[in-house]
Amino acid sequence: MIQASTTNNQPATPDAQRWVYCFDELDLVEARVGNDWDAVRGLLGGKGANLAEMTRLGIPVPPGFTITTQACIAYLEGGERLPDGLWEQVLEALHRVEAKMGRRFGDPENPLLVSCRSGAKFSMPGMMDTVLNIGLNDTTMLAMARLTNDERFAHDIYRRLLQMFGNVVLGIPDERFEAVIDDARRKAGVRYDSELQASDWKPVIEAFKAIIRQETGRDFPQDPFEQLRLAIEAVFKSWNGKRAVDYRNATGIPHTLGTAVNVQSMVFGNLGEDSGTGVVFSRNPATGENELYGDYLNNAQGEDVVAGIRTVKPIATLAHEMPAIYEQLYEIAKRLERHFRDVQDIEFTIEKGKLWILQTRDGKRTARAAIRFAVDFVNEGLIEPREAVLRVSPQQVERFLHPRFEQHVRQKAIKAGRLLAKGVNASPGAAVGMAAFDADTAEAWGKAGKPVIMVRPETKPDDVHGMIASKGILTALGGNSSHAAIVARQFGIPAVVGCHELQIDTEKRLFRVGAIEVREGDWLSIDGSTGEVFLGQLPTVMPDLHDPYLTTLLGWADEFRTLGVWANADLPKDAQRARDFGAEGIGLARTEHMFLGEDRLPIVQRMILAETDEERAAALAELLPIQRADFEGLFRVMDGLPVIIRLIDPPLHEFLPRYETLLVEIERLRLTDPTSPALREKERLLHAVERLREANPMLGLRGVRLGIVFPDVMKMQVRAMFEAACACALEGVQVRLEVMIPLVAHVNELRRMRDILETEAQAVMNEKGVRIPYAFGTMIEVPRAALTADAIAEVAEFFSFGTNDLTQMTYGLSRDDAEGAFLLDYLEQGILPANPFQTLDVEGVGQLMRLAVEKGRTTRPDLSVGICGEHGGDPASIAFCHAIGLNYVSCSPYRVPVARLAAAHAALKQA
Amino acid sequence: MIQASTTNNQPATPDAQRWVYCFDELDLVEARVGNDWDAVRGLLGGKGANLAEMTRLGIPVPPGFTITTQACIAYLEGGERLPDGLWEQVLEALHRVEAKMGRRFGDPENPLLVSCRSGAKFSMPGMMDTVLNIGLNDTTMLAMARLTNDERFAHDIYRRLLQMFGNVVLGIPDERFEAVIDDARRKAGVRYDSELQASDWKPVIEAFKAIIRQETGRDFPQDPFEQLRLAIEAVFKSWNGKRAVDYRNATGIPHTLGTAVNVQSMVFGNLGEDSGTGVVFSRNPATGENELYGDYLNNAQGEDVVAGIRTVKPIATLAHEMPAIYEQLYEIAKRLERHFRDVQDIEFTIEKGKLWILQTRDGKRTARAAIRFAVDFVNEGLIEPREAVLRVSPQQVERFLHPRFEQHVRQKAIKAGRLLAKGVNASPGAAVGMAAFDADTAEAWGKAGKPVIMVRPETKPDDVHGMIASKGILTALGGNSSHAAIVARQFGIPAVVGCHELQIDTEKRLFRVGAIEVREGDWLSIDGSTGEVFLGQLPTVMPDLHDPYLTTLLGWADEFRTLGVWANADLPKDAQRARDFGAEGIGLARTEHMFLGEDRLPIVQRMILAETDEERAAALAELLPIQRADFEGLFRVMDGLPVIIRLIDPPLHEFLPRYETLLVEIERLRLTDPTSPALREKERLLHAVERLREANPMLGLRGVRLGIVFPDVMKMQVRAMFEAACACALEGVQVRLEVMIPLVAHVNELRRMRDILETEAQAVMNEKGVRIPYAFGTMIEVPRAALTADAIAEVAEFFSFGTNDLTQMTYGLSRDDAEGAFLLDYLEQGILPANPFQTLDVEGVGQLMRLAVEKGRTTRPDLSVGICGEHGGDPASIAFCHAIGLNYVSCSPYRVPVARLAAAHAALKQA
Repeated sequence: MIQASTTNNQPATPDAQRWVYCFDELDLVEARVGNDWDAVRGLLGGKGANLAEMTRLGIPVPPGFTITTQACIAYLEGGERLPDGLWEQVLEALHRVEAKMGRRFGDPENPLLVSCRSGAKFSMPGMMDTVLNIGLNDTTMLAMARLTNDERFAHDIYRRLLQMFGNVVLGIPDERFEAVIDDARRKAGVRYDSELQASDWKPVIEAFKAIIRQETGRDFPQDPFEQLRLAIEAVFKSWNGKRAVDYRNATGIPHTLGTAVNVQSMVFGNLGEDSGTGVVFSRNPATGENELYGDYLNNAQGEDVVAGIRTVKPIATLAHEMPAIYEQLYEIAKRLERHFRDVQDIEFTIEKGKLWILQTRDGKRTARAAIRFAVDFVNEGLIEPREAVLRVSPQQVERFLHPRFEQHVRQKAIKAGRLLAKGVNASPGAAVGMAAFDADTAEAWGKAGKPVIMVRPETKPDDVHGMIASKGILTALGGNSSHAAIVARQFGIPAVVGCHELQIDTEKRLFRVGAIEVREGDWLSIDGSTGEVFLGQLPTVMPDLHDPYLTTLLGWADEFRTLGVWANADLPKDAQRARDFGAEGIGLARTEHMFLGEDRLPIVQRMILAETDEERAAALAELLPIQRADFEGLFRVMDGLPVIIRLIDPPLHEFLPRYETLLVEIERLRLTDPTSPALREKERLLHAVERLREANPMLGLRGVRLGIVFPDVMKMQVRAMFEAACACALEGVQVRLEVMIPLVAHVNELRRMRDILETEAQAVMNEKGVRIPYAFGTMIEVPRAALTADAIAEVAEFFSFGTNDLTQMTYGLSRDDAEGAFLLDYLEQGILPANPFQTLDVEGVGQLMRLAVEKGRTTRPDLSVGICGEHGGDPASIAFCHAIGLNYVSCSPYRVPVARLAAAHAALKQA
Repeated sequence: MIQASTTNNQPATPDAQRWVYCFDELDLVEARVGNDWDAVRGLLGGKGANLAEMTRLGIPVPPGFTITTQACIAYLEGGERLPDGLWEQVLEALHRVEAKMGRRFGDPENPLLVSCRSGAKFSMPGMMDTVLNIGLNDTTMLAMARLTNDERFAHDIYRRLLQMFGNVVLGIPDERFEAVIDDARRKAGVRYDSELQASDWKPVIEAFKAIIRQETGRDFPQDPFEQLRLAIEAVFKSWNGKRAVDYRNATGIPHTLGTAVNVQSMVFGNLGEDSGTGVVFSRNPATGENELYGDYLNNAQGEDVVAGIRTVKPIATLAHEMPAIYEQLYEIAKRLERHFRDVQDIEFTIEKGKLWILQTRDGKRTARAAIRFAVDFVNEGLIEPREAVLRVSPQQVERFLHPRFEQHVRQKAIKAGRLLAKGVNASPGAAVGMAAFDADTAEAWGKAGKPVIMVRPETKPDDVHGMIASKGILTALGGNSSHAAIVARQFGIPAVVGCHELQIDTEKRLFRVGAIEVREGDWLSIDGSTGEVFLGQLPTVMPDLHDPYLTTLLGWADEFRTLGVWANADLPKDAQRARDFGAEGIGLARTEHMFLGEDRLPIVQRMILAETDEERAAALAELLPIQRADFEGLFRVMDGLPVIIRLIDPPLHEFLPRYETLLVEIERLRLTDPTSPALREKERLLHAVERLREANPMLGLRGVRLGIVFPDVMKMQVRAMFEAACACALEGVQVRLEVMIPLVAHVNELRRMRDILETEAQAVMNEKGVRIPYAFGTMIEVPRAALTADAIAEVAEFFSFGTNDLTQMTYGLSRDDAEGAFLLDYLEQGILPANPFQTLDVEGVGQLMRLAVEKGRTTRPDLSVGICGEHGGDPASIAFCHAIGLNYVSCSPYRVPVARLAAAHAALKQA
């Protein structure tokens, strides 16, 4: 007691030598680092800061203290030596805790027990170490037995200390301890640890002590202070443990931060029916509803909840069982939520009728809940719309838009025993399909229109063709960074990996989970968001795009963002969907997709294979009304909004039969039916296809090059779009036409195209007697176009980055060839930080984009610049587009909501 | 005479209003524009300036005067009105000429005749107009007859005036006049105009007058002064004639320069045996020998020489026939050569024993002569080595290095009547081959190893596959910018185009020239440097690389250049050749070419198709000693010079059978021999090839990507080169090894490769106990590498630009697909100024190169940067490489001399 008061009288310790703060000394911390929550968390770690904050709020937190992150750094930098003064400060703080608890650490009659936990600034779940029940030894264990009148309990917590200390502090493999317990259970003839009695535990404790002696050459330290000191050092050291370093490397947490150590009085929820333990969320983290949500168990410890031996009770039960406690817990939860201005995930213990809060933190949540929380909090006046927008990540909106299994569906399936197994939730979304046990089968079924879940022990690059044809992927091995996981996320395919319970027999084409056997073709439902694997077909729900919470949130996002959000859509129905989702224009309407219809392809082929100008003209004349109708549909749907139509882009051989197929057919006919007229016809066709074949079609005769070589095709397309525009304008539709030229590398290409376009457009408008205002622009998708953007902007009135091709050319990487092949090696080996086709390569491709925007606007200050590559829907890439001053992003209709939020984030974070 | 002296007394005319200078008034010109030969030529035109200079030197130039280029500009800008004062100045100058000649313009007894010729600052041969014999009319014609005692002569020159004046000044088609002469010849029963007598000419003259009256509504102006004024105006106007404008557009001569007009007394070489005319070069323009060279005819006019009616005599004959004149001519030629410090091409006329020099200019020359002139002039003390180097263009060295027909061989062939025809010399070099009349035949023969001359009326893109398989190209149609000409130059294939004498019958597969018939398969020899087409096989000579003149010139070039010149060579014999040609290192040794030998390919295929690590290791172990031997050869040849070895680059499927071939073979076997073991083997092979097939192999699994995916191949290569280096070093060879990684896009790729390389290299050096210093570097051939060159230079010690791939990716243009297909459309339509694979695209690709050099050197100031793409041998590209600070260029061995000179030019021109 003397020491405790001494501590109170020693505010003179200089800040830099102050290593320890009691939970009730937040004032001192703030005096040191300022009233800055981030700095407080930096010094005390997240857990320590929250414990101090709760203490200040008068919430019943078991007393304790925090050793700062700086102490950790000083320890590690000082060659693993406790910095001067630290131990003395620990002792002083411990005395204050003793005073509060009315127990003494190491006291043979009334001992204080403490836990020792890591707590870094940023959560690193499971990455660092914890030791519980410190302070127990042969003597205090007996005291605990007396105090609790529960010998079994006292032996149990002592053996736990020995085991945790042995493993965490002394580095002895846990298996050695578990083997002893296994023996004890066997001897006692019981199944669970909890069934072991004090008499069972006694020999276990002796055996544990023997193991420690044997492994370390020393006895388990009976001195509680030595226990504590070694535990603190172990937590410090765990900051540089391999797991922690790997985790930080993966998540980008700096290695220089260090971890704090929280030493806290132990409280116990298993001291009778008036005790208990549980976890509660201040709101429902699954649905977002405003209700307490959680589980608890009476007369139990936290571990029992985890072990799943006894069935936990929903938190509502507590209201009946201990109404006063429930009331107190409810008030605390709401108070913490208001205080931290976010939904809280709270651990609590009830020890003999007294509620203790052990920890609070912002609650993890589903995407759906995140959106509802954000909106409700605004409506409740807790936060501003700006913050609500920032609280929901674009990835959450993306997840929200995935098909999913509804909560009640999952629960029903679980109750029905259909939950087969649980693995790593590697790629979110729900998928339902038939099990296929190799890539070829998956591909074949997928192409045949069957939904497939591809099941493999693990996947390899050779499997990718099957994976991308599947609805979902399930593997027995591998983790979040396995080949299967990376590929799945890359292609947005739901995946559960590392599902060790699956015993896959690829030869017999089945897998077993216990007695259940799943054969090829059987139905499976997997949930890549939870890692669950269900037998049979579970109904999925598509996202509700009219969800009122999402609608409200995106409405706020729109107020903050400066970047436009347009969509890529070729057909009127896609354009309508995009408009429904909030798209402000069509950034890319591909005209070639219009050529692929069954009614159209034969005409397109006649056009390509024409041997005379007349034949070609005839085919083009047939295509004209078809294209015109397509365009009319687009203009009507997008009435009043801009529509960027891109002229035909792909190489013409894409519209013709495959060369290899023809070769084989011809060889067959030559051998079997050499006089067949079909042979002559096919030979003629082969010759035509041969002429258009290219070594590297991506860099061949396509895009604007088609316009130069076959100007008639372009003229037809221009005529179709202007005839459509005139017709719509006469109906009263407000047409905002923009014509875009693909694959331009040199400004002269664009000049030529503009000449052709202007001539044809004028001709149509003169014929129809209507003036259609239009803009003329280009894709920037060839590096040279970006490099010479100043010259190109002399002709182009707008740019649209085609970042798919721009990435391919800047990297010299054919996406078709790289993805699913060596690009995965690159990602797995960490040579590339991300798939550049998913997330814009800011360093390389981004440099060209920035250059193009700058150069283009030197020539044409009001140049409109957008992006229509797939990156236009990727949040990180959208942030970059905002940063370099793009006018809009254009993405697939389903990604419009994601892009709206990402654009708002970009604007808010820049501001 | 009074007027003449008046002129002399009028130096007060302000310069700006002075439009006319007599040939002896060069002092006045210099007083006006300064002693600046370029400015003098700007004002007087090239021809006028030279005439004035010769006059000053006291060389017998027929008196005359020059109307300035400014007068032309004033005339054209003033709405085709002679500027004030011009006509008066013309008259004054004319009087001075009259005084000198002792004749008067228009004098009925002793008339002065003058010529009126254009003469711009830069030579525009044949593009503008000339009128001779001005001053003749019905009266003075008779006076000329009397004075020369030659009525035929007087009538002839009068009809020539009428004809030229009618055509050039009055715009009457020449055919109308020629038709009259044809009639006259027919009537007189003679073959040549020169056989027509005065009596024959008289009716012709009357007919000509009638034509003029009929066509213009006016009589031919009998007034000599009106003739002169109209002729001057006609020359002025010819500056803006279509031909002249087109020519200037093509050659880049500014349209603002205007042309001068030279009015000069006529002298006549056909006034008897003591008269004559000829052209002489001060040195032999074909061989470069220091001897007068040229032709003359006595009692003849210049036109007679051109018409080829009489056989011209070599100039040496003049030494016997008129020794004094020859002596005088020799002295003048040498004096002019010394004065102008270059070989002169001189027109002269001897009129009744008096030598007149009509014109001198720098003589055109063959590449061989240009080189010898330059060296001889230095040895004779006329110019400095610096100027000698600048006088020979890299293109001339290139031409010198082409195979060619020797002069005596050509002449012998011509004498033997084997010269079939002459066309446009579209692409230089001599070629001998068998005539093939379509592209498929040319390709088939070419692939079969037969030398082919492809003969077509004209060529189209479809023909390119045949053209590039041919030794030479011959067309009947088209000019220097026809498809055939462009393609031929692009691929360095000798070509003669527009050879109108050829009557090609592609159906019968032959062509006729007169009575001679050339059938498919017959031998032809074409000279793309002269445009000549010979029947049969003429022997060609390869360039003599030890030519002493070239050796001397390049030695000087080496002293001026700062850019290193290295060579690309894969085999020791190529490296030896490169070294002989002066290469200072090997900038690119491709290791994959070493895989293609007959003995090696099967091993390489085993390596690629290996199904186990053991199989692959076994194949690699077999390749190791082979590669090692290759490298040893290179190191020995390049003893003391750097050798950059590039690791394997091309996609592996290039080493395997073609997919399509296998497909067809398998189909055939399935139908004909379905149980054949060959079928199974081929199916297995097909499967392997299929796995390696790529949509865009250029952007696929190649270059460094192979090293990442198949590190064992790289290890083998590294081991081979270090084992070779150690072995050579032990022999005393100084090995300077540099290892280069291709296709790097991200610095991490390079880091990985360096780790592998260092480990393996250290292992080998430890085994052998030898230290080999080496450098580690990368190709910069992917745009991203250039953009991130700062990061890449952290690892790479040197860069080498692979501008072939860099151009392909920057342009998004596959060379294989573009050249011979749409790229020609681009060049023909003027969309691209040049083939970017021939001449570096400075604007786009060059921008990336400049960026890479700058960024790379910010990280590593001593970074060595070179280029090993084909552009490394292109003079314009070499100049750019010099400008952006490259350390060296590396090109094919045969281009090393060209590059050495180009590099010197770049350095001298920048300085």
